[in-house]
Amino acid sequence: MDVFPILSSIVHPVELHRLNDKQLADVVHEVRKAILEKVSRTGGHFSSNLGTVELTVALYASYKLPPDKVVWDTGHQAYPHKLLTGRLARFDSLRKHKGISGFLRREEHELDVFGAGHAGTAISAAMGFALARDQLGTGERVVAVTGDAAICSGMSWEALNHAGDAGTDLTVVLNDNRMSIAPNVGALTSYFTRLRSRPFLQSAAHQAKQVAEKLPAPMSRMAAGLRHGITHYFAPEQTGTIFEEMGFEYIGPVDGHDFPTLLEIFRNVRELRGPVFVHALTVKGKGYEVAELDARKWHGVVPFDLDKQEMIKAPGPVQYTQAFGDAAIECAERDDKVVAITAAMPDGTGLTGFAKRFPDRYHDVGIAEQHAVTFAAGLAAGGLKPFCAIYSTFLQRGFDQVLHDVCIQNLPVRFFMDRAGLVGDDGPTHHGAFDVSYLSFIPNLVLMAPRDATELREMMRFATDYDRGPLAVRYPRGAGPGHLPESRSPIVLGKSETLRSGRHVSLIALGSMVEVAWDVALELEKSGIEAEVINARFAKPLDLAAFAESAQRTGAVVTLEENVRIGGFGQQVRDGLADAGLGGLPFAICALPDAFVEHGTQPLIRKDCGLDAACVAERVQQLLGRKRRR
Amino acid sequence: MDVFPILSSIVHPVELHRLNDKQLADVVHEVRKAILEKVSRTGGHFSSNLGTVELTVALYASYKLPPDKVVWDTGHQAYPHKLLTGRLARFDSLRKHKGISGFLRREEHELDVFGAGHAGTAISAAMGFALARDQLGTGERVVAVTGDAAICSGMSWEALNHAGDAGTDLTVVLNDNRMSIAPNVGALTSYFTRLRSRPFLQSAAHQAKQVAEKLPAPMSRMAAGLRHGITHYFAPEQTGTIFEEMGFEYIGPVDGHDFPTLLEIFRNVRELRGPVFVHALTVKGKGYEVAELDARKWHGVVPFDLDKQEMIKAPGPVQYTQAFGDAAIECAERDDKVVAITAAMPDGTGLTGFAKRFPDRYHDVGIAEQHAVTFAAGLAAGGLKPFCAIYSTFLQRGFDQVLHDVCIQNLPVRFFMDRAGLVGDDGPTHHGAFDVSYLSFIPNLVLMAPRDATELREMMRFATDYDRGPLAVRYPRGAGPGHLPESRSPIVLGKSETLRSGRHVSLIALGSMVEVAWDVALELEKSGIEAEVINARFAKPLDLAAFAESAQRTGAVVTLEENVRIGGFGQQVRDGLADAGLGGLPFAICALPDAFVEHGTQPLIRKDCGLDAACVAERVQQLLGRKRRR
Repeated sequence: MDVFPILSSIVHPVELHRLNDKQLADVVHEVRKAILEKVSRTGGHFSSNLGTVELTVALYASYKLPPDKVVWDTGHQAYPHKLLTGRLARFDSLRKHKGISGFLRREEHELDVFGAGHAGTAISAAMGFALARDQLGTGERVVAVTGDAAICSGMSWEALNHAGDAGTDLTVVLNDNRMSIAPNVGALTSYFTRLRSRPFLQSAAHQAKQVAEKLPAPMSRMAAGLRHGITHYFAPEQTGTIFEEMGFEYIGPVDGHDFPTLLEIFRNVRELRGPVFVHALTVKGKGYEVAELDARKWHGVVPFDLDKQEMIKAPGPVQYTQAFGDAAIECAERDDKVVAITAAMPDGTGLTGFAKRFPDRYHDVGIAEQHAVTFAAGLAAGGLKPFCAIYSTFLQRGFDQVLHDVCIQNLPVRFFMDRAGLVGDDGPTHHGAFDVSYLSFIPNLVLMAPRDATELREMMRFATDYDRGPLAVRYPRGAGPGHLPESRSPIVLGKSETLRSGRHVSLIALGSMVEVAWDVALELEKSGIEAEVINARFAKPLDLAAFAESAQRTGAVVTLEENVRIGGFGQQVRDGLADAGLGGLPFAICALPDAFVEHGTQPLIRKDCGLDAACVAERVQQLLGRKRRR
Repeated sequence: MDVFPILSSIVHPVELHRLNDKQLADVVHEVRKAILEKVSRTGGHFSSNLGTVELTVALYASYKLPPDKVVWDTGHQAYPHKLLTGRLARFDSLRKHKGISGFLRREEHELDVFGAGHAGTAISAAMGFALARDQLGTGERVVAVTGDAAICSGMSWEALNHAGDAGTDLTVVLNDNRMSIAPNVGALTSYFTRLRSRPFLQSAAHQAKQVAEKLPAPMSRMAAGLRHGITHYFAPEQTGTIFEEMGFEYIGPVDGHDFPTLLEIFRNVRELRGPVFVHALTVKGKGYEVAELDARKWHGVVPFDLDKQEMIKAPGPVQYTQAFGDAAIECAERDDKVVAITAAMPDGTGLTGFAKRFPDRYHDVGIAEQHAVTFAAGLAAGGLKPFCAIYSTFLQRGFDQVLHDVCIQNLPVRFFMDRAGLVGDDGPTHHGAFDVSYLSFIPNLVLMAPRDATELREMMRFATDYDRGPLAVRYPRGAGPGHLPESRSPIVLGKSETLRSGRHVSLIALGSMVEVAWDVALELEKSGIEAEVINARFAKPLDLAAFAESAQRTGAVVTLEENVRIGGFGQQVRDGLADAGLGGLPFAICALPDAFVEHGTQPLIRKDCGLDAACVAERVQQLLGRKRRR
């Protein structure tokens, strides 16, 4: 028996146009059922996707894709899109290595017209599609679907400012579920709450329908008539002022789970011209009660028992994240100038406990990394010690602010970059593969990476006291090693730590790769090779004196880092050692490739990149072979 | 005779509080006179500063600096600030090497509380000061002065969203002159125009004054009363809706040149609590008629004759910029899919002619580099060939978008980065010192740099046809060399050009440094050293085969680039040659230091950084000395 009788027959959304409204309602039911059944087995983004089922089916039944284009922001909410575009059968491979991505990917499907993983890009991309259409004269419709958190990011505002002015045909759908991953913050969120309090369009829609039924059919469908009609019928009160002031026709609020009304609205909206803003209210986790009640917990899930409504293993904070959160509280207890900043990730960064313990010294600025960084610079200039906790991949958004506002002014902001290195299932938009490269060249900045969670705490204590300029600490997603030596030397600016002495090769490792270097040394021991293991601790300034001393003694160097090779740790060590006259030594750099790494479990993709102990050990053997042949 | 009798006695704005309103009006007059006289001699930002004279004097006479803090956005408009903070005597050194900066600098003065050069940072920084104050309980007032262009940048919106929600005491002054450097664009600009059309607060102020005069004095100054009073008295109509919806008290529009009203308003505003938004309308070039009439021409000036009202030499577009603008038109004529994008810099990037020639294929998105980049990605995904022209330093703002939206998706956006390398007088916030480092490590991206303006044109033709992925071209501010050989080989992906053969050393140069390498070779010839000169053309992918062949032949390598050493061209060449077994060769990297380079003329600061021909020739001699000693 086919459990998805209609959905399994839909390999392309064009087929939705052949269904009547009753059948479309069945599709809604099947899509929700598919998400429940599939995601409970695979894990993935859960509650956001339950919230967009009606919205997606209504959109795809109303628009003609292709040539029409729907651009999804971030992609946390695009599983219904994937299920309606022929990926039901492959859905069990979701987020698995070589399987379908958890986000949109242009490579994956022609209707994944624009991929994303970072928030706030959809309106900009849709403006590109719309103005390309205008230039090419192709006439298709373009829709951007964004969220109430993503729309607060600066680039969404820049795009709205452009779109409202350009006046081209573009529809922005705001999927407003009052949440990003945690509850949203910001003045705009309060504003949305005020808009939400207005009566739903449902009754007004019925009212409009009644009026429209009295008109001759052609007139009631006339786009020009609808354009003004829709707002006036549907939203007689003054609503959506901000968006109206920005040049958009505002339609809302709409109940994002009232499927018949959504269908009616989108069919009409498709005929409208100019910039249109549809404000749909949805509920994260819709249709699965425990997720509706605790959308934050059920945002991203591991596999779980659908009936028992229990996650088989609660995802919970991982060790580095937990260590950061605990140590941040300790640092704040010790120094009353410590203040913490997050950009909409209190849980992900581990700051939830800090927020409870020090509510006045904790600032969640929403998905606004640019502001987060310069705000932190202002806090530092104002005499505080800001801990700015932003994932490695998201700090890319604040790159100019790190350089221009923090580092040029040499302000002592402390950056903590969780998820540095390969993050696993979220894939290329989320890997923290670049931070060593994009931070090392910035003057004044100190860049550190701990070998384990205990060292992270020690680096945080060091960072609390280091007040001479900006500092950043990168650490990976996950638990970190538990088997490295416990004896520790204190953290000293620019000094590395030698974990193990050896005569044949120097393994100089950064952060997460210290564990690998250690395992490589144990492996090489079996072949009689004595490897020296150095924990670099600092990617900047480098402990070149220690590295050179070791290299001179062992006669061969291998650097290890979970960052791309170009502009990374290894190239800088190589440059430094060459300047010290050691350029002729056998030297190998183990780093991420010059390519975007796909999704998959961390061990699997690390191995694919040649960064597991077995691969590195083999490279060391090869290097020593060359050394002997010299 | 002291031409600035009052101003020259003001070494600190606290002294303004001792003056009566009549004397303050004299200060206004002297500040404007000083700007006219000084800037006509030194050159610098001109029309913006004439526009903020009344605003600044009124602010500084109303607030108590320090401890109060005024944060200026960008700094184009802060000369009055400098003149009121004891820098009149040093003003002739403006923008000169070791002289005072054209922007605010924390190192320069305690009242330069937060420096900037890029737009949109002031509200974020001011929020940092405000929340630091709240945590430390110090109670001072915090003001951010931003412009109508800067407020459209995404990070300003992120900061407003935070400020309106946090509800702390913060005043945002919008200096609305309808211009950034060129006329502003965007929906918000239209919105400001609608606000401008309302009656000035002047009459309302008089009205309020009349009412206030009837009240007992203490009551009329009561902050609580004023808070609501001011908006209601001053702006009885519904105004400033967007800012009110964001949680601000909106006061405006105010005539930014009506000094008595400004004084009255700021004295009152200082007593208000919570987020306050003051909308002041100013005129760029105020008080100097030709500048009022053509603020765009008079935005940044070279020295000029104040009486004749003529710039001694019109600044005009420089050769690279002109070449880019001309070639962009040629490319667009040849290929109708070419479309150009600028972020508020039509003149600076050279696109003014393009905009006239192809108005429908030209998009100025305002100061919104993030949107510009992802919008370009959307245009590319929509089938066009976007030319995204953003200065090297400002593309830092779009870094994440280059990586996440363009390069992960391998979309063929063409970036053109003018002002790559040291820009001169604008100093550390504007040097394009980092782009090779922040772009080279991004997978899929091709990075080029032409040796002269002719080669820029050829690279643009190459870029028009190269449709396999993203590409960026960096080129410097200025005229470029005219004395390099005219014979040229065609541009081929990843291939360098050997300009001159030699037996003793390989000079491998990128972009602007090819000229220097050429001059070095001529210089070395005098000492009998034959230097090979290679124009790298591509910073990525590198022509390592050619470099290795040359290096093997000459036995010594010197790389030259106008970019920081860390993560730059030289380190990558060194890494590549070492992997090719040439790690032992004498090797020197001529690059910018790991420091923020100060302002000064380009030749002077290049020499300071060791990047002029004499310095490089000396380094080559030293290197060859070491080579002989090996």
